[in-house]
Amino acid sequence: MVPYAPPVSDMRFVLEEVAGLASIASLPGYEVATPDTVAAVLDQAADLARDVLAPLNDSGDREGARLENGVVRMPAGFRDAYQAFVAGGWGGLPCPEEYGGQGLPLAVAAAVSEMWSAANLGFALCPMLTMGAVEALEHHGTEELKTLYLPRLVSGEWTGTMNLTEPQAGSDVGALKTRAVKHGDHYRITGQKIFITYGDHDLAENIIHLVLARTPDSPPGTHGISLFLVPKFLPDADGAPGRRNDVRCVSLEYKLGIHASPTAVLAFGDEEGAIGFLVGEEHRGMECMFTMMNNARLNVGLQGVAISERAYQQALEYARTRVQGVPVGRDGAAPIVWHPDVRRMLLLMRARTEAARALAYLTAALLDRARHSPDAADRKRTRARAELLVPMVKAWSTDLGVENASLAVQVHGGMGFIEETGVAQHYRDARIAPIYEGTNGIQALDLLGRKLVRDQGAAAYALITEMRDLPAMPPALSNGIDAAEMATTHLLKSWGSDPACAMAGATPYLTLFATVAGGWLMVRAALAASEKLDRGEGDPRFLKGKLLSAQFYTDHVLPQATGLLASTVNSTSITTFDPDLL
Amino acid sequence: MVPYAPPVSDMRFVLEEVAGLASIASLPGYEVATPDTVAAVLDQAADLARDVLAPLNDSGDREGARLENGVVRMPAGFRDAYQAFVAGGWGGLPCPEEYGGQGLPLAVAAAVSEMWSAANLGFALCPMLTMGAVEALEHHGTEELKTLYLPRLVSGEWTGTMNLTEPQAGSDVGALKTRAVKHGDHYRITGQKIFITYGDHDLAENIIHLVLARTPDSPPGTHGISLFLVPKFLPDADGAPGRRNDVRCVSLEYKLGIHASPTAVLAFGDEEGAIGFLVGEEHRGMECMFTMMNNARLNVGLQGVAISERAYQQALEYARTRVQGVPVGRDGAAPIVWHPDVRRMLLLMRARTEAARALAYLTAALLDRARHSPDAADRKRTRARAELLVPMVKAWSTDLGVENASLAVQVHGGMGFIEETGVAQHYRDARIAPIYEGTNGIQALDLLGRKLVRDQGAAAYALITEMRDLPAMPPALSNGIDAAEMATTHLLKSWGSDPACAMAGATPYLTLFATVAGGWLMVRAALAASEKLDRGEGDPRFLKGKLLSAQFYTDHVLPQATGLLASTVNSTSITTFDPDLL
Repeated sequence: MVPYAPPVSDMRFVLEEVAGLASIASLPGYEVATPDTVAAVLDQAADLARDVLAPLNDSGDREGARLENGVVRMPAGFRDAYQAFVAGGWGGLPCPEEYGGQGLPLAVAAAVSEMWSAANLGFALCPMLTMGAVEALEHHGTEELKTLYLPRLVSGEWTGTMNLTEPQAGSDVGALKTRAVKHGDHYRITGQKIFITYGDHDLAENIIHLVLARTPDSPPGTHGISLFLVPKFLPDADGAPGRRNDVRCVSLEYKLGIHASPTAVLAFGDEEGAIGFLVGEEHRGMECMFTMMNNARLNVGLQGVAISERAYQQALEYARTRVQGVPVGRDGAAPIVWHPDVRRMLLLMRARTEAARALAYLTAALLDRARHSPDAADRKRTRARAELLVPMVKAWSTDLGVENASLAVQVHGGMGFIEETGVAQHYRDARIAPIYEGTNGIQALDLLGRKLVRDQGAAAYALITEMRDLPAMPPALSNGIDAAEMATTHLLKSWGSDPACAMAGATPYLTLFATVAGGWLMVRAALAASEKLDRGEGDPRFLKGKLLSAQFYTDHVLPQATGLLASTVNSTSITTFDPDLL
Repeated sequence: MVPYAPPVSDMRFVLEEVAGLASIASLPGYEVATPDTVAAVLDQAADLARDVLAPLNDSGDREGARLENGVVRMPAGFRDAYQAFVAGGWGGLPCPEEYGGQGLPLAVAAAVSEMWSAANLGFALCPMLTMGAVEALEHHGTEELKTLYLPRLVSGEWTGTMNLTEPQAGSDVGALKTRAVKHGDHYRITGQKIFITYGDHDLAENIIHLVLARTPDSPPGTHGISLFLVPKFLPDADGAPGRRNDVRCVSLEYKLGIHASPTAVLAFGDEEGAIGFLVGEEHRGMECMFTMMNNARLNVGLQGVAISERAYQQALEYARTRVQGVPVGRDGAAPIVWHPDVRRMLLLMRARTEAARALAYLTAALLDRARHSPDAADRKRTRARAELLVPMVKAWSTDLGVENASLAVQVHGGMGFIEETGVAQHYRDARIAPIYEGTNGIQALDLLGRKLVRDQGAAAYALITEMRDLPAMPPALSNGIDAAEMATTHLLKSWGSDPACAMAGATPYLTLFATVAGGWLMVRAALAASEKLDRGEGDPRFLKGKLLSAQFYTDHVLPQATGLLASTVNSTSITTFDPDLL
């Protein structure tokens, strides 16, 4: 097993030079994010990720979460690790200080979140889901619910879950059937939910389920859905976990990866009906979910970055130590990192990982600005741009996570296929991220049908214009930006005349735009690195590595834009046939 | 679990319309391959694959091969399945009739081999390895060895293995240390081999290991390696398995996939030295290996096709039955196959699978012609072309196998990540094929350093010229052919001046050339399908499906050529840096 070394240097570089951390820290409410504080936070998170969480990644995978006599048991070591996590106050990093959070920018939380996922994806899902519950409550809960639940969720003393999926209701959330019937000040919930991440576990003394359900006589589809808070244990008068609620974990899924993360089937109301409390208004449950969607999708995108980084580190370590053959230009046997094709694979992983990280942190910073900018126009502009980028961060980064993990296996040759080596786990774990929190196909449709169409491409064109405004423009980037613009115009036009055709191009469009935006950020990073080198600032080895990644990305990744443009616009062969021909 | 339906219609279409089966069957020695015989062989193979092997794929994965008290136990049902396989004479399909084989063309064997791998990759490896042993013996064994071993290997009564890898000798076979010392008419072998597929098992009464080892005072590197036959049980005077030889399975690897296939660590000569018999001449072991390399690599390439097909079938079945949401243009909820993005994924899998199948079968037919053509010039020409294509078939098809299996998981959404669904197994199993039988990086170097440089691109340029000679040429194909030609010329030129730069471009070059060649065959297939439709021949649904695949491939896969050309030629960012920058 190769240890995980959190890439703090690149994280800080991206935060400072690409995401504009200094400007975020100057926003009202983010004064706490001084350079010293951010540096300390990243270093301390790195310690926990490297020393506590990462060493449990392999054992957690082998042991897995288990359902025993109705109780979910986490793998050895996870309880202590979670207690260390809570003790460090990590759960509340970007949460409001009034509920015990640290009030740090999402951009900083993004870097920290990447570390948790890289160290131990199975573990990291628990606080990630809790964060979603915090956001939902913070924005839509009554004062009573907030007072009772938020401090304990922010601290991590209690954990949270999101209950959307049912067997017949996956991407089509509106098809859900779980029922909620009003009884005085609460509701009684009955139904079955599947794919509930950390739906049960023994890390915390209480679990707060946020559950989408349907009240009687609600309109069909998503407009008839409401959101409820359903605690595993009903808090007593002191707020301590009291009586067991009528919700049970009936089984755990046996999955391809993230074995440590319990994926539960939850039965609500097998007896008298689970007691739930309305969050937000009746029939407005989907809107409540949208509140937390940006952050959740950003965080899943960061999982793609995280797995890419972890897999890259493992492949690099292998390539540096595995001696095999005499590489061209060398006198004798040498580590395989000297073989050109191995270097190509490593650079491909590295360049894509850094580009995806840059896009994710930038998006987080835009969300910070959208929340805290004192200027309403700036808030509006940055929100539109962030919402344009969120589906790209989610889908593109997680697709890259799978590809990078696969390449990392390949670098290992036969050893990569042996589970003991550890890199195969990343290949298995990586595969979930393109699926959950809205499949990547759903992300592409969100980008097209919601983000692009909503403002007739205004946010996309604004970004394209800004991308063109670089002091130095490699031709591959310029071509890529042209391709992104043509694809945007094509999709907007065909959306009006033939929406199926536009939809058929949505995924290649997302990949195209994200690839180009990632390239733009790599070029910006390279410019910043060059300037630092010229000024004699910073670590020359790191900065030269940044130039190398940017050069490789420009030479090898950006040229894919041509093919992606073709895929975006040539969609008639997808939409015009009878599926019976397949 | 979705049953496997061998795609016999497409197999026959590709054999007849793309690989030129009629012309192969007219070669001296292949008269047996009449249309009726081939049809019967494919149908009977399909029965066995569908009804016997495929149902054991999932249980074989879950149960796995196990080492118990020094004995390897295969999963339940595998013994009976193997007996059915032997009884059907399937092991000897392309083997010489004088040893009990059926003497059928490799092109037909390719289709059959695809079926075995699609039905049950873990099972299929056993006869595939045996076939390698047969070829080595057939071409290099003494008459005595052939008489004693070949009939039993051809029948499948005994199975074979290939022993190359040692811990320090993977891609660099020449680094192996296993020793062979002459004792009278045999040798004594001592050493440890790893990653030995079906190195031990309980399917057959004897296992014939072909072992690369080094004789005393042999020159270093590959030129000092010899090949030995080491039976698990030494045949007695009647040829029946007699005394146990000094070779033991000391452990099995716990792998990401192909759990049913035992991957053994074999210890030779822990006691008095394993008795081995020289195959070919001393120090010529690598040449013997090269004899069987084309077929072995072709067969692994077919595994990529096979996994792609199986994963596609499973994804298609799910997409046809899973109802979710209201697809654009539909009135109500409908199966997800109606969603444009799902159709895009299915078509991408399908088109790439068919293209890879076409390239693989064509290559098999070229090997048939290289062996049996009465015209020496034709033999030479077809051998050169086959040897150009073999590394493409191996690497491209297996890379696509991984990508297609990953897409198949994605089509399933959350269900794809649950092992019970079965599609995750394909994602795990697929990952080995880019690694074994020479990693795909090694294939790219073989294509560049051996196939391309050997004749200064003659075979490549001849194929490019022939590809240009199509009656109808879609612009995307024409552009692709131009890109392949430019890349070829670039690599040949840089090989002379800067071989590291050429090597850095080898993998994108392989992908580029194979993508274009696959597109050429898809266009040829579409032309043949059009003609058949015009003549009112054949099944219109199948033929229209062929047109659809070709159209999609032209629109969505061929345009990748531009990016691949850039990756091939822009290699300085790979070769010029100090690896310490990584």
